[in-house]
Amino acid sequence: MLLDLIEKENDIKKIPEEDWPRLSEEIRQFLIEKISVSGGHLGSNLGTVELTMALHLAFDLPKDKIIWDVGHQSYTHKLLTGRREGFDSLRKYGGMAGFPKTKESDCDCFNTGHSSTSLSAGLGFVKARDITGGDNFVVSVIGDGSLTGGMAYEALNNAGKLVTNYIMILNDNEMSISENVGGVSKYLNSIRSNVGYQDFKYAIYKGLMNMPGGGGMVKGLRRAKSSFKNLVVPGMFFEDMGITYLGPVDGHNVREVVNALYDAKRMKKAVIVHVVTKKGKGYLPAENHPARFHGAEPFDIESGLPSHPRIKANYTDIFSTVMVKLGERDERVCAITAAMPDGTGLKRFKNAHPDRFFDVGIAEEHAVTFAAGLAAGGLKPVVAIYSSFLQRAYDQILHDVCLQNLPVVFAIDRAGIVGSDGETHQGIFDISFLSSIPGLTVMAPKNKWELSDMLKFALSLNAPVAVRYPRGEAYDGLEDKREPLELGRSEMLFKESDIAVIALGSMVKTGERVRENLKARGYSCTLVNARFANPIDGDMLRELSRDHKLLVTLEENVKSGGFGERTRQLLYDEGIGTELLCISIPDEFVEHGNPEVLKKAVGIDADTITEKILKAYGSLLKT
Amino acid sequence: MLLDLIEKENDIKKIPEEDWPRLSEEIRQFLIEKISVSGGHLGSNLGTVELTMALHLAFDLPKDKIIWDVGHQSYTHKLLTGRREGFDSLRKYGGMAGFPKTKESDCDCFNTGHSSTSLSAGLGFVKARDITGGDNFVVSVIGDGSLTGGMAYEALNNAGKLVTNYIMILNDNEMSISENVGGVSKYLNSIRSNVGYQDFKYAIYKGLMNMPGGGGMVKGLRRAKSSFKNLVVPGMFFEDMGITYLGPVDGHNVREVVNALYDAKRMKKAVIVHVVTKKGKGYLPAENHPARFHGAEPFDIESGLPSHPRIKANYTDIFSTVMVKLGERDERVCAITAAMPDGTGLKRFKNAHPDRFFDVGIAEEHAVTFAAGLAAGGLKPVVAIYSSFLQRAYDQILHDVCLQNLPVVFAIDRAGIVGSDGETHQGIFDISFLSSIPGLTVMAPKNKWELSDMLKFALSLNAPVAVRYPRGEAYDGLEDKREPLELGRSEMLFKESDIAVIALGSMVKTGERVRENLKARGYSCTLVNARFANPIDGDMLRELSRDHKLLVTLEENVKSGGFGERTRQLLYDEGIGTELLCISIPDEFVEHGNPEVLKKAVGIDADTITEKILKAYGSLLKT
Repeated sequence: MLLDLIEKENDIKKIPEEDWPRLSEEIRQFLIEKISVSGGHLGSNLGTVELTMALHLAFDLPKDKIIWDVGHQSYTHKLLTGRREGFDSLRKYGGMAGFPKTKESDCDCFNTGHSSTSLSAGLGFVKARDITGGDNFVVSVIGDGSLTGGMAYEALNNAGKLVTNYIMILNDNEMSISENVGGVSKYLNSIRSNVGYQDFKYAIYKGLMNMPGGGGMVKGLRRAKSSFKNLVVPGMFFEDMGITYLGPVDGHNVREVVNALYDAKRMKKAVIVHVVTKKGKGYLPAENHPARFHGAEPFDIESGLPSHPRIKANYTDIFSTVMVKLGERDERVCAITAAMPDGTGLKRFKNAHPDRFFDVGIAEEHAVTFAAGLAAGGLKPVVAIYSSFLQRAYDQILHDVCLQNLPVVFAIDRAGIVGSDGETHQGIFDISFLSSIPGLTVMAPKNKWELSDMLKFALSLNAPVAVRYPRGEAYDGLEDKREPLELGRSEMLFKESDIAVIALGSMVKTGERVRENLKARGYSCTLVNARFANPIDGDMLRELSRDHKLLVTLEENVKSGGFGERTRQLLYDEGIGTELLCISIPDEFVEHGNPEVLKKAVGIDADTITEKILKAYGSLLKT
Repeated sequence: MLLDLIEKENDIKKIPEEDWPRLSEEIRQFLIEKISVSGGHLGSNLGTVELTMALHLAFDLPKDKIIWDVGHQSYTHKLLTGRREGFDSLRKYGGMAGFPKTKESDCDCFNTGHSSTSLSAGLGFVKARDITGGDNFVVSVIGDGSLTGGMAYEALNNAGKLVTNYIMILNDNEMSISENVGGVSKYLNSIRSNVGYQDFKYAIYKGLMNMPGGGGMVKGLRRAKSSFKNLVVPGMFFEDMGITYLGPVDGHNVREVVNALYDAKRMKKAVIVHVVTKKGKGYLPAENHPARFHGAEPFDIESGLPSHPRIKANYTDIFSTVMVKLGERDERVCAITAAMPDGTGLKRFKNAHPDRFFDVGIAEEHAVTFAAGLAAGGLKPVVAIYSSFLQRAYDQILHDVCLQNLPVVFAIDRAGIVGSDGETHQGIFDISFLSSIPGLTVMAPKNKWELSDMLKFALSLNAPVAVRYPRGEAYDGLEDKREPLELGRSEMLFKESDIAVIALGSMVKTGERVRENLKARGYSCTLVNARFANPIDGDMLRELSRDHKLLVTLEENVKSGGFGERTRQLLYDEGIGTELLCISIPDEFVEHGNPEVLKKAVGIDADTITEKILKAYGSLLKT
């Protein structure tokens, strides 16, 4: 196998050009086989096999810096930099990450995970190189989806000033995670559809512009259709910003990409190389079902079907179903996603209520302020964004929604530990950053019915509300516990005495197990479903303090600024002296791995919690 | 006076066209007189007098919606909507705000303060109108500076899809707060400099494109200079996105702007009207010193000089001086501002070390990730951003800087209560949102010398560090207290017993007064300079617990997730049972007004704190 010849970076340069197609085929087969077992981002990686080969042929690693936007397309890069063995532990706890990690390899110069950061980081590397007198190349690889994120434009705006080499690869797969949206997409499409014509048209224009007296004939045509103007020259959009445009280039032709990269290396300014690729390239199921194979679960290679089909609904499914109903019930309800109609489950809302569905692109900031505008205009927007991506819109939530007390509902999927995507994707900060925003109600449901109830309740509040729920299977226990929701009130699930466990959201299920553990050891234990992280239920705390010696909060969030810490402050404010133990994720980043393994590692699994409670209760009895 | 005829919205329509120039003159004089007394945003308001008049002539308020980006240019709008009296209480506590406020008037449909939000909000209003079957117009007014913010592009990208009317006014004053940067600026400049030529050039191009056989003559010219391409048609950049471009229009000619607005009203899509204005128009000192008259202190109209010249240095001055020195001492030190070289004090660094100074535009997100790239490339970047604007970059701080433990220093000016700019600008959340980020050290200096020491210390740590300091005069007391800094260690200032006040940053000065109050009443009081909001000094807490009955934390930040709450948790974790009283800003937004007045209003002035301590100490002795 050719792959056997590649033990480290730059080894690919030993492969003769005639073998490049065979190598790309081997890489593709390797990725399909490995990902079919481990799960992972298949489509984006199959789409960038040749592009990555070309990068490794044209550049010198680790001296030259390649920054991958998002980074889930870096598998071939990992393979070509001596990490072939790593694929057996891909995305597992302690194993190789699914994203670039500086600690894994010298060839990973910058960690990524969230979208649209690679140009900003790349510009930093460029300036650092020039200031320190280095002579390396800096290359950022950004997808057309990531280009809808505002940060990318902020960076392009700055790149236009460069008088030094900086290479941006626009990996245009005509579709990011889902159907791309808006002006940029339209524009790129017009370039693509006119490959071949460009030189001709542009030549006409240039020639005639240089002819004396050529004008005057067709005045008044100033407002022609933009689609026509796009024909003039591909990349005008970028050239307008002062960035040289090269392309479009066939991203599955290694030679063509290599040539473009060598052209780009000669420029003394920022240059964008427009590479057209196909997601899932070479594996038909992935080509045909790009959304399913974006972040794939383990699958059967032959059929392309999941190896372990899901039986139970997950929280996203519940959200999906409820949103369709809520949209039917109230015509003011609308839904917003930042390029995640599949991931958030809003696709069904889109089909049911297309006029009230908005996919704004990978643009969380715009999504939130757009929702604020919708709300100010009299509608009831629900913004569905994953917890870790919502970090992008912190200011918009505070400044545009909450300062005006606008009725925007934030549906926060993937809140808590998400698992194999790792530290960039863990949704473990939202309680902290949301709870300190005045006027924002923060809720988390204990099970699937409560998610439904909370969404309805949130829409009824006429104020900003966040509902956070975790990735994965929706809990279907405690079906009989369904007290009506009341603002800032928790729900008593099992009332006993001595020890009271107050669990938030996903931790209610864990709390049940903790309670069973404690009861099995002869302790009496109350279980409360907190429901609200903000405002916290002071009445319940007062009530519990009467016949409990130890209160315990459980949350799937970091400790700092979390539910526990704020409960502790409230106890003081209310003059309640009862002992409080706070169980939360330590104030550290949490890497990738199976969620259950990770929960144990950070100490929020039922057994560890039980031990912590017993210890705290024990020392309480001693004093 | 013509102004007397304008008692409410739409009254301007009664003024005959021949009187428009006189009205604009009256408005200008009114603004100059009022702002010379109250202080406020003079330059931007003088620049938009005619534009605002045109908007009020062309549209029907409050039915039509005008959304002001940032909003500090809305004074004429306030004047034309019945708020003339308000100017006597402008920016005062309880008085009229310096920004649009929905609670002030029906004609303010959306609150603003931070940059680049108006297009997103405007799109929300457009969709809300269409969904609810309304027939009002929606107009967003955005400056060329705000257009460098990524959110604006995210919105433009979405606006390109519209098949309904939406009007964006590009208020191009050739300079936002400071010199504009990058590709967008270059592009707008090229449009402006070619007014008059545009129709001619475009006509040539269009005419020849339609001629059969016109081409082929000048092949191979594909990579011509972008400056040349910009001549083709103004607004191609916008047209590329699917947005109709109208302009440029002289923004000081009311009739010309009105005509363009009527043109815009006829479009069934998104349209951008490019209006060229001049900051400070009509008042020479403001025209000549735009930075000084951006947010002006009260000034003498004749000379344009401040009425109350500053004698003492403020924290920004200290930062400014120290940065120049740090840049001399270490060639890896570089400085980044998001369009605020004057406001942050980095202008001196720019002059001293131009190659290591970066103004990235109003682009806080890019600023931070760019800094991460610089740090990853071996430099020592200092990013200077006001506290409330840093909210924009929360995710970038967490995801791009702290996850990789990169040595980026955040210099956070305007932390705490900022005063007259009001609720959108108060820097009262940074301790909360920063302290929950793993690995980020958060500091605040007690006085001007400590700011200098902290910046040096921060650069020595080789890890992410934030230093927050308030707006206004730098405290120059406690000069003799200058213990060397040590990570996570607080500083004992006055050691006594019984009551220990642990004050963070700006609150040390307040703490001194509180201590004096307490001592005057016969109490013994220790004063500690906390120095670090994260990590908090557990050793000091343990030490204090030995001979103090009451610990008191003081911070200029909201309570939730703040220094006090986290101290309370640490006390529990360390097994320290001493009573703790946390003094902080309540979990509410804080409006505009004099900072001293506001501090009293929210209960963090020395007298109120003294009373709270006495009460807490009293009930402690009772139990």
